[in-house]
Amino acid sequence: MKTVGIIGANGYTGSELVRLLAFHPEVSLGFLYSRSHPGTKISDGYPDLAAVCEMELTDRPEETDVLFLCLPHQESRNWLAQNPVKDETLVIDLGNDFRLDGNFGDRNFIYGLPEINKEQISGAKSIANPGCFATAIQLALLPLADKGLLNEVYTTGITGSTGAGQSLQATTHFTWRNDNISAYKTLTHQHVDEILQQLAASGSNEISLNFVPWRGDFARGIFTSSTIKTEAEFSDIEQWFNDFYAEAPFVTVSKKAIDLKQVVNTNRCVIQIEKQGNVMVVHSAIDNLLKGASGQAVQNMNIAMGWEENLGLNLKPAAF
Amino acid sequence: MKTVGIIGANGYTGSELVRLLAFHPEVSLGFLYSRSHPGTKISDGYPDLAAVCEMELTDRPEETDVLFLCLPHQESRNWLAQNPVKDETLVIDLGNDFRLDGNFGDRNFIYGLPEINKEQISGAKSIANPGCFATAIQLALLPLADKGLLNEVYTTGITGSTGAGQSLQATTHFTWRNDNISAYKTLTHQHVDEILQQLAASGSNEISLNFVPWRGDFARGIFTSSTIKTEAEFSDIEQWFNDFYAEAPFVTVSKKAIDLKQVVNTNRCVIQIEKQGNVMVVHSAIDNLLKGASGQAVQNMNIAMGWEENLGLNLKPAAF
Amino acid sequence: MKTVGIIGANGYTGSELVRLLAFHPEVSLGFLYSRSHPGTKISDGYPDLAAVCEMELTDRPEETDVLFLCLPHQESRNWLAQNPVKDETLVIDLGNDFRLDGNFGDRNFIYGLPEINKEQISGAKSIANPGCFATAIQLALLPLADKGLLNEVYTTGITGSTGAGQSLQATTHFTWRNDNISAYKTLTHQHVDEILQQLAASGSNEISLNFVPWRGDFARGIFTSSTIKTEAEFSDIEQWFNDFYAEAPFVTVSKKAIDLKQVVNTNRCVIQIEKQGNVMVVHSAIDNLLKGASGQAVQNMNIAMGWEENLGLNLKPAAF
Amino acid sequence: MKTVGIIGANGYTGSELVRLLAFHPEVSLGFLYSRSHPGTKISDGYPDLAAVCEMELTDRPEETDVLFLCLPHQESRNWLAQNPVKDETLVIDLGNDFRLDGNFGDRNFIYGLPEINKEQISGAKSIANPGCFATAIQLALLPLADKGLLNEVYTTGITGSTGAGQSLQATTHFTWRNDNISAYKTLTHQHVDEILQQLAASGSNEISLNFVPWRGDFARGIFTSSTIKTEAEFSDIEQWFNDFYAEAPFVTVSKKAIDLKQVVNTNRCVIQIEKQGNVMVVHSAIDNLLKGASGQAVQNMNIAMGWEENLGLNLKPAAF
Repeated sequence: MKTVGIIGANGYTGSELVRLLAFHPEVSLGFLYSRSHPGTKISDGYPDLAAVCEMELTDRPEETDVLFLCLPHQESRNWLAQNPVKDETLVIDLGNDFRLDGNFGDRNFIYGLPEINKEQISGAKSIANPGCFATAIQLALLPLADKGLLNEVYTTGITGSTGAGQSLQATTHFTWRNDNISAYKTLTHQHVDEILQQLAASGSNEISLNFVPWRGDFARGIFTSSTIKTEAEFSDIEQWFNDFYAEAPFVTVSKKAIDLKQVVNTNRCVIQIEKQGNVMVVHSAIDNLLKGASGQAVQNMNIAMGWEENLGLNLKPAAF
Repeated sequence: MKTVGIIGANGYTGSELVRLLAFHPEVSLGFLYSRSHPGTKISDGYPDLAAVCEMELTDRPEETDVLFLCLPHQESRNWLAQNPVKDETLVIDLGNDFRLDGNFGDRNFIYGLPEINKEQISGAKSIANPGCFATAIQLALLPLADKGLLNEVYTTGITGSTGAGQSLQATTHFTWRNDNISAYKTLTHQHVDEILQQLAASGSNEISLNFVPWRGDFARGIFTSSTIKTEAEFSDIEQWFNDFYAEAPFVTVSKKAIDLKQVVNTNRCVIQIEKQGNVMVVHSAIDNLLKGASGQAVQNMNIAMGWEENLGLNLKPAAF
Repeated sequence: MKTVGIIGANGYTGSELVRLLAFHPEVSLGFLYSRSHPGTKISDGYPDLAAVCEMELTDRPEETDVLFLCLPHQESRNWLAQNPVKDETLVIDLGNDFRLDGNFGDRNFIYGLPEINKEQISGAKSIANPGCFATAIQLALLPLADKGLLNEVYTTGITGSTGAGQSLQATTHFTWRNDNISAYKTLTHQHVDEILQQLAASGSNEISLNFVPWRGDFARGIFTSSTIKTEAEFSDIEQWFNDFYAEAPFVTVSKKAIDLKQVVNTNRCVIQIEKQGNVMVVHSAIDNLLKGASGQAVQNMNIAMGWEENLGLNLKPAAF
Repeated sequence: MKTVGIIGANGYTGSELVRLLAFHPEVSLGFLYSRSHPGTKISDGYPDLAAVCEMELTDRPEETDVLFLCLPHQESRNWLAQNPVKDETLVIDLGNDFRLDGNFGDRNFIYGLPEINKEQISGAKSIANPGCFATAIQLALLPLADKGLLNEVYTTGITGSTGAGQSLQATTHFTWRNDNISAYKTLTHQHVDEILQQLAASGSNEISLNFVPWRGDFARGIFTSSTIKTEAEFSDIEQWFNDFYAEAPFVTVSKKAIDLKQVVNTNRCVIQIEKQGNVMVVHSAIDNLLKGASGQAVQNMNIAMGWEENLGLNLKPAAF
């Protein structure tokens, strides 16, 4: 059994890691770190965990084999600088600190999207876990980027309220958000750079991604639709998608209409392609806390440690 | 045209009054008072009002013919003490300050449930607007109290999130509340005393009301079910209810199953009676912000001023 | 008082007309026609109407001053052929029969989008009421079409379940739709032709509209975001929008972020413009049953009859 | 590996069994029986299962070690009569056929509530799986029945839409049910007899259970509040509950407020006790498809087969 520590365990992605790792057959939870709530139980804030994990939060990190950083964005570098970690510890950062620039002292964070970087992740000691929208949109676009087909992309994506974290905000007030739809960060979402960098790494440099994010009136999940123009044949495109994801255990290219709840409470991504004339739309759906965050982090850990990729991730879908 | 002022206009019940009074044919809005947001527009906080009311909030109350107090509970007495109001001004308090004890200097606040106090309300200058759960539960029980039939009452009620006001709370966080049900203030809700006092005024003194309030995963509305034992015949009970509400324009006793959305965005209350053996259940539903607060306040104003009871209250139901 | 008849009164748009017209000061309901439910009350199917309208549905149409057709798409022509209507009767069709081709015998149906056709609607006897998505998207694009700025448009829109009507379908099953998002009719929605025809009438002929409709997990409303490229200055564009809607009582161009619930249960449309570099996004929101259907039909009636445009349409927003 | 067959696999409880058993370490799915959809894949109706189980539905049952009956109520007896099952096959019926009378030929169905019948279930070949409301309410009342404290019980319970199954009904239409609350089967719910029979088996014969079920606007879960009168001390009651469930791995007696989402997507039941004077309220919450149906069926299988009670039931909570 390998030991695991979680920095920022009392947030949404941290608590979701606890839900996953409590039942993971190869790891045991070593400590749950929280600056804000040391001395309380993780289940005080997340009572669903009462029967799953009775550990107390602590503000004293220990040495573990794996360390997950679930801090607010741009706090991971500082934390690592102030809390040095042994070289042999696998560090997986769920923040955005190392996604665009993975260098940190002797460490070089690998962009942890297993569908394109599985080889590099295998054996890695430093992994930058992708953003939630970035995961959903890249998985929709990568097979096209791989063929050099991308040029102008128009994407709309909708996210559940858990994407906004646990702090109380006007836009996560139930009275406001229930039955409501709104746009935010139009054309300026921070994940666009992350996506473009990875698409460029696939050889597609001249892409513009016009991304309109929406807030949805549900708690879990992301659904995106991306529209592009291409003269390629639908049957060829479909084949490219199937080939691209042939070895990806968590991605399904669906011939039928997809919907968000197919993937809620799973680590899966479902993708559907449609085409009319020379206009093509790719839909994708993930659970933002799982394939979009903590589930993907566990997937990365599994690959990095040389375990089965789906260990601890055979999750019963919520479905309804 | 009579002038109206609203103290605490920037809260939920205050803004709902603006929505109603902006289209009321006999009144004009004189001022909207807010300690917290003077100088901003009411539509800054409630953008649905952008095309309805472009008034600014002020912290300087003026003299008006009607004054609505929409302050947090237990702040109305202080406010009136510090901001004396002319005797001829109609004061309607939506807080709970005057519901149990209506005396305040020369004023004597009438309990503003028109279905039992219409005569007293007519011409009154001081009205204590009932609580939302108190309204829904009383309308379900009053015809029985009137017949002296009440003894032990077991009530469960569920409320929308607007009942908790606009402050951000853990229990109004969308991520928590969506698809969730929970109990609160079990057997200790503050409206129980208010209800019992009114039922006692109907001649039913020895009533115990065991009330379990629930938080619902919707924004508007209250639904309650009250169970009692009685040997009375169903047909008699039905007749009593019909007689009791014969002159009440906003109460419907339904022979068919009722549901909450029948009354959302209206000032109505729907009631349904069911009976098996000697056990009887009365269901009732209201919109907590309308018949449970601001709509009833306008109804009280209409009666007090001698206008048609439904003036400004012929609201299109939301229905869906 | 003018008399009004509704053909297909027992559907969603028909019942919503009843909710509006029951309180309209210039009309009285003459008859409510339903093939499927003659002899029942409209309030049997829509119990929120119990206290608003106690009329029975009938399968015998009568002569009225105004006739609203709320039939399934492509049934209005047949109905009119089989049930001749006097020339002086104002006929407003909420189906899609006359939107692309308004000719029908001596009648010539005017496309009833008041924001562009108010003059033609005034005094008209035949009006084709626009589609719901068509209304939301056109109001977002028309000021740009008017300036000849449109070329490629990429639009995503999300609709409430009422848009699918009252028939029980797998995609309107609560268990499936709750918390769910899905795409449908990708790039093939029937409103695209309707939109393009009107934009062409504005002088913009070479427009392609790539429209991805989504099903939302709410009952009322439509929210759309349209992305286009333009070198025009933001301040100019904003001015064009403000000028274009200067005389439109139900359209608000908002400087602040908009959200769907601002317009729910109103006849309003809110629009917001954003721009980054040469990419521009226009968001728009309407209530699909009101500005997207029955409310706009009443607005058209008001204009055609020479009444105030907002008569019977000063609706209290649901807001929450 | 033991083989498992599911009769009625294409319904909600059947498909939920597939979700559970696909990952169960001791069983393999032998066949999925469906009269209505033979030849189609289970994932055609439940696309979340696409990556979990690619089996086809069949109308030809085979011999298996375990057989789950997920038929409509009152069809299990007929099915077994027409499709004889070997004596050594473990039959678990999720319908209500054998709950009140377990006799069927040589078989005697044990009431499968493990918290009271674990010994009888161990080694049993015939198990009647309890109803969903019956499970939630019994778990709330059994410790009191065990002490002979129950007399008059007043219970309100609310259920998610999955409780109504997959057939399209007016009361499961999204447009109707979203944001709506309604009562049904007031005082006449079929689970009352089931509950009273079990409470009587605990020695409490003279109980009356006044149960008001509500339909909730969510898909998964049941929340109940039961009010009784008792002179017993709160601390004693709490001790009885803790003692009663000391060996029950899926029941938690919480000192803190509970809410429905604590148990969604888990096989758990959480219970909370409150008391004011001589009035006591017990709240309980379960996931109706898991502890209220398919999860409990797997728990029963585990016990009957002599496996760990929680095998295949360490489910990641949905939590949000």
